[in-house]
Amino acid sequence: MSDPFYRPVSGFDLPRFAGVPTFMRLPHVPLDDPRIREVAIGIIGAPWDGGTTNRPGPRHGPRQLRDLSTMIRAANGATGVRPFDMVNCADLGDVGPNPADVADSLERFTRYFRRVRDAGIVPLTAGGDHLCTLPILRALAADGPIGMIHFDSHTDLFHSYFDGCRYTHGTPFRRAVEEGLLDPKRVVMIGIRGTTYDTEDRDFARSVGIRVIPIEEYFRRGVADVMVEAREIAGTGPTYVSYDIDFVDPAFAPGTGTPEVGGPNSFEALQVVRALDGVNIIGADLVEVSPPFDPSGATAWLGVSIMFELLCVMAPRVAARRATS
Amino acid sequence: MSDPFYRPVSGFDLPRFAGVPTFMRLPHVPLDDPRIREVAIGIIGAPWDGGTTNRPGPRHGPRQLRDLSTMIRAANGATGVRPFDMVNCADLGDVGPNPADVADSLERFTRYFRRVRDAGIVPLTAGGDHLCTLPILRALAADGPIGMIHFDSHTDLFHSYFDGCRYTHGTPFRRAVEEGLLDPKRVVMIGIRGTTYDTEDRDFARSVGIRVIPIEEYFRRGVADVMVEAREIAGTGPTYVSYDIDFVDPAFAPGTGTPEVGGPNSFEALQVVRALDGVNIIGADLVEVSPPFDPSGATAWLGVSIMFELLCVMAPRVAARRATS
Amino acid sequence: MSDPFYRPVSGFDLPRFAGVPTFMRLPHVPLDDPRIREVAIGIIGAPWDGGTTNRPGPRHGPRQLRDLSTMIRAANGATGVRPFDMVNCADLGDVGPNPADVADSLERFTRYFRRVRDAGIVPLTAGGDHLCTLPILRALAADGPIGMIHFDSHTDLFHSYFDGCRYTHGTPFRRAVEEGLLDPKRVVMIGIRGTTYDTEDRDFARSVGIRVIPIEEYFRRGVADVMVEAREIAGTGPTYVSYDIDFVDPAFAPGTGTPEVGGPNSFEALQVVRALDGVNIIGADLVEVSPPFDPSGATAWLGVSIMFELLCVMAPRVAARRATS
Amino acid sequence: MSDPFYRPVSGFDLPRFAGVPTFMRLPHVPLDDPRIREVAIGIIGAPWDGGTTNRPGPRHGPRQLRDLSTMIRAANGATGVRPFDMVNCADLGDVGPNPADVADSLERFTRYFRRVRDAGIVPLTAGGDHLCTLPILRALAADGPIGMIHFDSHTDLFHSYFDGCRYTHGTPFRRAVEEGLLDPKRVVMIGIRGTTYDTEDRDFARSVGIRVIPIEEYFRRGVADVMVEAREIAGTGPTYVSYDIDFVDPAFAPGTGTPEVGGPNSFEALQVVRALDGVNIIGADLVEVSPPFDPSGATAWLGVSIMFELLCVMAPRVAARRATS
Amino acid sequence: MSDPFYRPVSGFDLPRFAGVPTFMRLPHVPLDDPRIREVAIGIIGAPWDGGTTNRPGPRHGPRQLRDLSTMIRAANGATGVRPFDMVNCADLGDVGPNPADVADSLERFTRYFRRVRDAGIVPLTAGGDHLCTLPILRALAADGPIGMIHFDSHTDLFHSYFDGCRYTHGTPFRRAVEEGLLDPKRVVMIGIRGTTYDTEDRDFARSVGIRVIPIEEYFRRGVADVMVEAREIAGTGPTYVSYDIDFVDPAFAPGTGTPEVGGPNSFEALQVVRALDGVNIIGADLVEVSPPFDPSGATAWLGVSIMFELLCVMAPRVAARRATS
Amino acid sequence: MSDPFYRPVSGFDLPRFAGVPTFMRLPHVPLDDPRIREVAIGIIGAPWDGGTTNRPGPRHGPRQLRDLSTMIRAANGATGVRPFDMVNCADLGDVGPNPADVADSLERFTRYFRRVRDAGIVPLTAGGDHLCTLPILRALAADGPIGMIHFDSHTDLFHSYFDGCRYTHGTPFRRAVEEGLLDPKRVVMIGIRGTTYDTEDRDFARSVGIRVIPIEEYFRRGVADVMVEAREIAGTGPTYVSYDIDFVDPAFAPGTGTPEVGGPNSFEALQVVRALDGVNIIGADLVEVSPPFDPSGATAWLGVSIMFELLCVMAPRVAARRATS
Repeated sequence: MSDPFYRPVSGFDLPRFAGVPTFMRLPHVPLDDPRIREVAIGIIGAPWDGGTTNRPGPRHGPRQLRDLSTMIRAANGATGVRPFDMVNCADLGDVGPNPADVADSLERFTRYFRRVRDAGIVPLTAGGDHLCTLPILRALAADGPIGMIHFDSHTDLFHSYFDGCRYTHGTPFRRAVEEGLLDPKRVVMIGIRGTTYDTEDRDFARSVGIRVIPIEEYFRRGVADVMVEAREIAGTGPTYVSYDIDFVDPAFAPGTGTPEVGGPNSFEALQVVRALDGVNIIGADLVEVSPPFDPSGATAWLGVSIMFELLCVMAPRVAARRATS
Repeated sequence: MSDPFYRPVSGFDLPRFAGVPTFMRLPHVPLDDPRIREVAIGIIGAPWDGGTTNRPGPRHGPRQLRDLSTMIRAANGATGVRPFDMVNCADLGDVGPNPADVADSLERFTRYFRRVRDAGIVPLTAGGDHLCTLPILRALAADGPIGMIHFDSHTDLFHSYFDGCRYTHGTPFRRAVEEGLLDPKRVVMIGIRGTTYDTEDRDFARSVGIRVIPIEEYFRRGVADVMVEAREIAGTGPTYVSYDIDFVDPAFAPGTGTPEVGGPNSFEALQVVRALDGVNIIGADLVEVSPPFDPSGATAWLGVSIMFELLCVMAPRVAARRATS
Repeated sequence: MSDPFYRPVSGFDLPRFAGVPTFMRLPHVPLDDPRIREVAIGIIGAPWDGGTTNRPGPRHGPRQLRDLSTMIRAANGATGVRPFDMVNCADLGDVGPNPADVADSLERFTRYFRRVRDAGIVPLTAGGDHLCTLPILRALAADGPIGMIHFDSHTDLFHSYFDGCRYTHGTPFRRAVEEGLLDPKRVVMIGIRGTTYDTEDRDFARSVGIRVIPIEEYFRRGVADVMVEAREIAGTGPTYVSYDIDFVDPAFAPGTGTPEVGGPNSFEALQVVRALDGVNIIGADLVEVSPPFDPSGATAWLGVSIMFELLCVMAPRVAARRATS
Repeated sequence: MSDPFYRPVSGFDLPRFAGVPTFMRLPHVPLDDPRIREVAIGIIGAPWDGGTTNRPGPRHGPRQLRDLSTMIRAANGATGVRPFDMVNCADLGDVGPNPADVADSLERFTRYFRRVRDAGIVPLTAGGDHLCTLPILRALAADGPIGMIHFDSHTDLFHSYFDGCRYTHGTPFRRAVEEGLLDPKRVVMIGIRGTTYDTEDRDFARSVGIRVIPIEEYFRRGVADVMVEAREIAGTGPTYVSYDIDFVDPAFAPGTGTPEVGGPNSFEALQVVRALDGVNIIGADLVEVSPPFDPSGATAWLGVSIMFELLCVMAPRVAARRATS
Repeated sequence: MSDPFYRPVSGFDLPRFAGVPTFMRLPHVPLDDPRIREVAIGIIGAPWDGGTTNRPGPRHGPRQLRDLSTMIRAANGATGVRPFDMVNCADLGDVGPNPADVADSLERFTRYFRRVRDAGIVPLTAGGDHLCTLPILRALAADGPIGMIHFDSHTDLFHSYFDGCRYTHGTPFRRAVEEGLLDPKRVVMIGIRGTTYDTEDRDFARSVGIRVIPIEEYFRRGVADVMVEAREIAGTGPTYVSYDIDFVDPAFAPGTGTPEVGGPNSFEALQVVRALDGVNIIGADLVEVSPPFDPSGATAWLGVSIMFELLCVMAPRVAARRATS
Repeated sequence: MSDPFYRPVSGFDLPRFAGVPTFMRLPHVPLDDPRIREVAIGIIGAPWDGGTTNRPGPRHGPRQLRDLSTMIRAANGATGVRPFDMVNCADLGDVGPNPADVADSLERFTRYFRRVRDAGIVPLTAGGDHLCTLPILRALAADGPIGMIHFDSHTDLFHSYFDGCRYTHGTPFRRAVEEGLLDPKRVVMIGIRGTTYDTEDRDFARSVGIRVIPIEEYFRRGVADVMVEAREIAGTGPTYVSYDIDFVDPAFAPGTGTPEVGGPNSFEALQVVRALDGVNIIGADLVEVSPPFDPSGATAWLGVSIMFELLCVMAPRVAARRATS
């Protein structure tokens, strides 16, 4: 059971439009706060889009996600899970980037997430563009390569852009494999679609054993069947879940920089997360929400709805792990 | 057959962007107009959001719905029904609220809808937030409790908010059951989803016999099967239809205050209404369209498309009733 | 194989937000450029909405489509087709309308597309409202009536508007049949829905043998089955493909003047084009994208995604034809 | 004194967001209504933009102007004038255009405004683009040329566009002078600015004696001095006032098709109208409000504020004329 | 000198888009936090619009003002004042309303601001609609009537709306005078304009001695001269400053519910506050910022710029008072 | 006189919404085109915002500026200058950045602008954020330090951000002085305002002799007087003009990342450029237009209106220089 200090403010008490907006109306507990040792799951903003090759904006994502997250309530209507009752969840604030220096930002993020990991906190990160995931993996895979379930319309496995630029939001997982952070045999990428430059990313995936499930196969087989395979690929080892909002069709998630039409709807966007129940998740993220392309916040609302579903599959595992340790 | 006075202006004659905008380009016949006695179905605006606990806006709904309704034509392309030819339909104008006093507004609305009922007019109301439905039920259920088919992502069955506040858009049907306006055994709620505070609303539903069909069940069974059950629950008695636009997925209906992702698409949004054919409808509404959250009017366009479908299932019954009386 | 001059600028070299925006980052080769003889497929803007009876805007379509088309890459992720490698594709620029004179614009367009045809170029046109298709058909059907596969929510087969006005975006195909440009037996219209004035358009379709597939039938049968019939109707003769963006549900394509709710999603919007593989396409268009109703460009992004799919079914045929001639 | 029937609905009684929106919440009295003979000033919508050479939208102007006009109250805060108390004012509805035929629309408008004039009604018209003013002048100048005070950033005195097209929103006053509708010696154009094609329009103005006051002179001399001259030019004869919203700087009036930066602010936008006090106004208009370029309605709000100021200088004269006739 | 704990986070250290958004990046110190006793000036959100008679939205004001306030830096560029160095400033969070009950909200607010006053904190409140000021005055004027300098386009002195409704955003100062909270001889209202219902509010002002400076007089005399008079009226006694954002022209502040065109520009919007230097300010507010009418946040940005100027005239006085007590 | 090839397409011939959008409808002549030797003034897009510390977006500026520039006509209405007739002007296209590497982009830009300079072309650059100006100065000041007239609300003279980051849009002119590109005695900065971190930038300006004119002084003295001083400071030597759109008040230019309220209006925005007549301009830019913060394009429209005024003061000098060389 969680400490009542870590229960969200209820909309029955304080209207949802009121109050300083923290993630899901949880208490704000920065890393240097003494209470940080009580926290089991930390929700963290990663306001950075230094890796974005086309339309920027995800640096503004965490603030809008916090704003919309005030509409999340205490329990999952579909599964009944009440994550905030199970373990102490908190808003850890944002990790600070250097918006004018990619290498420096990668360093800052890696250091920050190492501190999170060392504090025994399971991070749920709100991006930021997809390059944010690389320093998170550098921190979480300190003891060896981990598995990953990756929802996206792109593989993000490219070698480089712009005549040799190796760190963009199209390359994080190429780097992560090269750096030994991911075990490619335990990586599955779901929802891939859109026009392509060439087959270099898919060739690389094949050569190292990453399983790519294109959207046509996804629709043909259905969510349940695809997710059975995804769980098998991830297995029982430590697994990271990376969810790019552009996995979802742009009608449901317009606020993103590289949308690809022909994706899943919002019901499936939640279903795929619910199907992660039982996976050994050691961290997760929701990235590429870009407020400038969605002033109304519809994408952020879907984003935090997905983050809540992630919490609902993470919390029981974290609670169980804590109970046995 | 209807009086030609009650036929909408055709877009073949006057372009759809021209003219003072009334609902579906029908004549404006206020309650104190002598012609009011000719009217069989009255379309009424309820511009009020005094019950809104989070994001206001539905007070502007009727005006935007009127604007977009000028794109509705004379016949239903799917069913062939021509409601305006069957019975006299008119725009009755708006019922006037007191935007700074909830209790006074409830009184004003109840009085207004009693006059509508006393004039023998079947009301199709454009909200307004969902609290608007309570005074309508107070007027229509004067002779005893009625049934209700309710499309929504929320049950609106909560007891109270904010330390005892009993009249909000989250409580109308709790009040309606308590006041004996609804026969809970003849009430069905379809599409329920989203995060929840607790199970207090569902517990109440169960305790009085209201049937709640969550979205997961809805998708599993399909529209046709769900609607067979809905019609059975409503039976042959007088039935009200209340349609909250947030029943539909927010990609299709972004302009609403409490959206819940993972809902039906716009094709199903119409299908469920077509499946009401044969139900003994004595009034209906379409509520929670909130223009500030949808400047483009897409939500209002879906809203009036649904209202037209409602008209198409109401008109034949009303015509038949009038023919036999 | 195409000349390297006709390969799009890659986003790996020049970021997608940079450069003068041409369709798909192809070279701009106007009709009076000497290189025009090298071009096999010409992408052409038709910035005109003189036939629009309600909400104008498609005159701004080509510019926004060019802008968003810079996000298209070199290959089709689903089919692997690389159209720009197969035949020389170019942006031919825009055909110039007279925005204050419908008859003069029709003349200008007809003359322009005759020059395109005489240059042996297969046109892929970006509208513009649907009246733009009439002068294209006048140019392409110079040797006799042709077939047409038509995706739309409306038949555009009406006789006239506003007391005798025969040239609007609701009448092009009535005119085209009357003028002998289309062989009605080889015409199929898919996705028809929405409220209707009367049955005059459908009666006409039936009387001349045009096959109309309403959206209800489309959903019941599914894409694959419907498209088998469509290909049979078109047969092996020369066929035009006209794609009105309002075929797609307005949640996916909000930026259009006469949206009808209850349409296909964006995945199906692409699937129906892929199913055209093998059809003898002599020209195609994507019309009714209206930027004022979609400032974010989401509709244009879907529009150019569809245009790319059209290219992918056109290019192999054009390449084969060229190889044998 | 006016008939109480012609008093606007008060916001103290019915909230401003409620009710079918008519101009300034006045009664809707179409030309064929028997009460039309009681009306002294008729507010008329001219929803047409057939003359627009670049960005369309003014066809939607009247509806948005009606919507925003519901925020106008009964009296002028600066001058104390209460126009609705002085003479019977009514919303006459819209004159119906043919959106696909410029010549036909000009005919329809001319006929309509002749009926208005024959009914002894002084028209205050809400455009529509500036070509709308030509048929109004044709109707009002039936007895001989009249004067005009014209606020605009463009002269609208061009000869023709697009290789001979004589009827666009850039040509109405060239036509009006040629047709003998305007007495050029009694015409003044205020606020002219922006880049120019050539000096053809200014040369014409000079050749016929129209006085053009560019914005630089306007700012140097100030509103009071400029308006003294304007009143002198108009003299005591019958005078039309034509107000193009693009007279005002686009920061204050973004919703228009051909904005020119560097114009007057909104305070001066009202002041110039107040300075018309005493001019023998026989009709007036406010044109070029284009809702697609201003979804928030800020431009329409300024537009109806200007229309109310126009009413406040028109009503006393009309009342005096009626009292003496 | 202030405690370093109360210095804002610098944009040189953490980018302005990062971090949980508090007012001006100050620490969040709720009333029940032990550190509250250290706070001299408390910035408070009042997210409520229960008094709004037309277009709601100010309930969302505090959150958007917080968001934009992250762009405020440490010093006033024009005056050199560094308020955060002078006294301890903090974000006290929001006072919680009951959005469905006006009377209950007034109670809640009055209680809250009494606690603020009892803690010796000078409140700078971000509204909310203008009715929010009434409970603030009830708390601050506990020892007797105070003076007020009021920037607004409306007097907010009306008696009642909607047939007897006494508590709306058009009535707070009528109530405040009646309740003895304001000394009308020490009240000045600046910038009044727009259309009016009648002269009831002005008659009341005159009858009790409130000085009203209409916008025409304001522009004629200039800011400096008007503010000399304002300071004289306020005198040396305790004075409240109430700043309605609709004082400013809607081109500069579009996001508000009852805009009136013809107001001051943004430079004057700041100048009038700077001219308050030396006034004995015991509290201030900035109200009526309505995010739904300004998604881009331009109005909130002006609003927090004004709030910062208010801080810059409040801080020296508060520092001096503290030094001598 | 210019070659007719370099005359813009007229809106009398091709409507302004038609055609591939180049700057001011000029021909597109890239640096590697043989015709490049004929070009005297090159308009160049610099789509980059790698130096932006808060809200990104200027990378999209050039495309939107091109789009809006199609509304620019041939002559200056105020001064009569016809720049396109005087010298050959062309759209040179965009300089390509590396969006994920600041240092690499600075290199690419420097190389590009050296080629421009070596080709004898005077550049008029459309940004991009203000860091873009640094590589331009590196190219143009190859023969020694130059003067600069700088319109902005910020000095952009800061030393560094984020713990040592020396290249951001807040530092270009500090670097330019340090690198000997600017002669600080010949530099004037006009319009400075807003809150400040500290006085480090002003101290530096004072220490090296840069003249800073804050907005308060600017308004007190007036445009004419300020610009006399500015011309004196620049003298007769080679001078660069750098115009940050945030010089203008955000009501007129909302689309920018770091707006500061209280700035000049759009009339003055043009006047200050006209007052540059006679200055020895060797290059100019208009930077910081950020489309994501202004979807309507109002800011870009003001931006290209300013660019056209810049052309009008550059073209006569360039023509004279060419005539004498």
